[in-house]
Amino acid sequence: MTAPGENLRINGDRLWDSIHEMAKIGPGVAGGSNRQTVTDEDGEGRKLFQSWCEDAGCTMGVDQMGTMFMRREGSDPDALPVYVGSHLDTQPTGGRYDGVLGVLAGLEIVRTLNDLNIKTKHPIVVTNWTNEEGARFAPPMLASGVFADVHTQDWAYAIEDADGKKFGDELERIGWRGDEEVGARKMKAFFELHIEQGPILEIENVDIGVVTHGQGLSWTQLTVLGKDSHTGSTPMPMRRNAGLGMARILDLVDEIAWSHKPDAVGAAGHIEVYPNSRNVIPGKVVFTVDFRSPNLAVIQDMEKRLAEGAKKICDDMGLSVEIEKIGGFDPVEFDETCVQAIRDAAERLGYSHRNIISGAGHDACWVNKVAPTAMVMCPCVGGLSHNEAEEISKEWSTAGAEVLFHAVVETAEIIG
Amino acid sequence: MTAPGENLRINGDRLWDSIHEMAKIGPGVAGGSNRQTVTDEDGEGRKLFQSWCEDAGCTMGVDQMGTMFMRREGSDPDALPVYVGSHLDTQPTGGRYDGVLGVLAGLEIVRTLNDLNIKTKHPIVVTNWTNEEGARFAPPMLASGVFADVHTQDWAYAIEDADGKKFGDELERIGWRGDEEVGARKMKAFFELHIEQGPILEIENVDIGVVTHGQGLSWTQLTVLGKDSHTGSTPMPMRRNAGLGMARILDLVDEIAWSHKPDAVGAAGHIEVYPNSRNVIPGKVVFTVDFRSPNLAVIQDMEKRLAEGAKKICDDMGLSVEIEKIGGFDPVEFDETCVQAIRDAAERLGYSHRNIISGAGHDACWVNKVAPTAMVMCPCVGGLSHNEAEEISKEWSTAGAEVLFHAVVETAEIIG
Repeated sequence: MTAPGENLRINGDRLWDSIHEMAKIGPGVAGGSNRQTVTDEDGEGRKLFQSWCEDAGCTMGVDQMGTMFMRREGSDPDALPVYVGSHLDTQPTGGRYDGVLGVLAGLEIVRTLNDLNIKTKHPIVVTNWTNEEGARFAPPMLASGVFADVHTQDWAYAIEDADGKKFGDELERIGWRGDEEVGARKMKAFFELHIEQGPILEIENVDIGVVTHGQGLSWTQLTVLGKDSHTGSTPMPMRRNAGLGMARILDLVDEIAWSHKPDAVGAAGHIEVYPNSRNVIPGKVVFTVDFRSPNLAVIQDMEKRLAEGAKKICDDMGLSVEIEKIGGFDPVEFDETCVQAIRDAAERLGYSHRNIISGAGHDACWVNKVAPTAMVMCPCVGGLSHNEAEEISKEWSTAGAEVLFHAVVETAEIIG
Repeated sequence: MTAPGENLRINGDRLWDSIHEMAKIGPGVAGGSNRQTVTDEDGEGRKLFQSWCEDAGCTMGVDQMGTMFMRREGSDPDALPVYVGSHLDTQPTGGRYDGVLGVLAGLEIVRTLNDLNIKTKHPIVVTNWTNEEGARFAPPMLASGVFADVHTQDWAYAIEDADGKKFGDELERIGWRGDEEVGARKMKAFFELHIEQGPILEIENVDIGVVTHGQGLSWTQLTVLGKDSHTGSTPMPMRRNAGLGMARILDLVDEIAWSHKPDAVGAAGHIEVYPNSRNVIPGKVVFTVDFRSPNLAVIQDMEKRLAEGAKKICDDMGLSVEIEKIGGFDPVEFDETCVQAIRDAAERLGYSHRNIISGAGHDACWVNKVAPTAMVMCPCVGGLSHNEAEEISKEWSTAGAEVLFHAVVETAEIIG
């Protein structure tokens, strides 16, 4: 492969303008975006993206999950395309950058190649994966999951939103169900640029995260059962306080995660207390423990210790506990060649960089199952995401897109 | 005072029938009652009680808080009346016995005295205190609180329910705002029979609780502030997990309560986690700690240790905490003579008994500030109350009412 010269740069202002042009569609209430998957707003966003791609001379394919593939031809008709992209859908109170940066940075790569009249041997395909967020139709990363054969298409079509509407029907309704068989495309590689959604790069003042792994995830739902009784008239020895059981299990979760430092993490984000009245000892608490690690054996160890430890805590307190694994995915190890292409690009362009593990799930995590894949991350302010106040700087966006650009065009091979 | 003979008994079947007749008004959805204060159902219940009192030859007084006073005359026009009663209002999903037992046992005392043609020197006044529950208009024990000068009447009238309706307006609307000045009545004594609302008597198989004290109460609301961030992409050392801070404070609350065994208790019943999403580390948790003890110094010690301990826990974790006392009342020590009258009655009637501390608040706790007061408790199944499944046996109800009867008529002094 021929590496592009360090003087090859994208147009950071144009990328920045396009991001904020897209944010006008499905505006949030607080400066962010509400462009949830397969809504009318998503349809409008797709149309804008399509028009930009057509302006850039690309052709479009759409598969039966609605994923959009905008293709810039290569010189070799038999060469597998290099894919680049992310997602245009947002959380209901989402930010302007989560997903959007990765898709529009792909568009900016094509625009820059056009400006400079650069040809590549391999086609470049800019991709907008349908329903990455999973906010309206769970789970997240739905279309890339079907693409990678993690889910079946029939199952995905049947998923209902809170109003009982089916994903497949809504995709049809907004006019973006394509004919193309999902997963039929073969890729030379897939690259995704994404904001970090964590605090590390900003705190360490590093421009570029070279994503080597994706955290594996395990979601365990625990239901601690005691007896709801009056806070005044129930003596301490007669209490079966499910709230206190939950509290002790949360401390255990923390201890388990720390025992696998530095990469493992653990916490409970969702906690429901019943009946949740000031003068009633909780008879039931339902909560979800989120464990993550780039190492599958570590995740399995954390799950095991949680189950055993929670049972012991509850036994000792006269409580019972029901434990159910309600979600998860295995850790991801990204393709070494693709990862090195990103690291080399950052180095060549003079950006500071460090290896990083993606804590969140991304389309790249599923695509990695069927194609050589890697990710670039740029910092985001305060690590904040899934929030209308999500913010990045134009400099960060430009740096991330330039590293993506170099990795993609090196992989796609510049001609002449 | 002349004690009644042990052969003097009330009519337990009649009392039981009246309780279940009253339960037909404002029936709950699951066998209990929904007769919330100053609703139409409360008005209907009052009318039924009034008709029973008139049938029993009593006269009625109603004060400006709507509290009903049904009077059976004594032989001495100058003798202070002996008061007996509780409340007829219920929780929205309340039981049939909480409060109702105490009022209708008072009625049964009058009926039995009539049956046996017994005269007392002191009048006997059966009382139905308005809004003991506080479910619709907080705080609980509202009318008895105004009676005992804990609250002003103007303040009470201005309290709004969830629909913005004022207590005073609703009392007027249902036609039960009387003319009588609140608190003007002087009492020789006040006696209240109530179900335990706790598990002790049933577990120990004891018929009668002789209530010596009411627990003092302290409600402290804690707001633990951290930073909400992604559960996957925030490394352990960078987390400020308000949920974990809450968990450690709950363990401290338990430790503090146990350190003052056997009478002190402590727990958190109400816990709200923000944003309460599975993949977001809680940035804020608001919860209320309920401490109780019959000893004021113990309550003060528990509050102090909670405030200091919570601050230290949060400091160590990079969290902040806001601490606000949002409610409470001082411990109650009931009148020694009245308490002894109850103990003597149980002894005389051959019922097993033990001293007990009331964990919940009752009208008697406020009335105790302005008159010699005591309480009788009978067991309830599983300690369950504020629940439609609240249950007692006819035997328990009869025993409680008989002890109440003996204490009241001994205090009212039988003539001839």
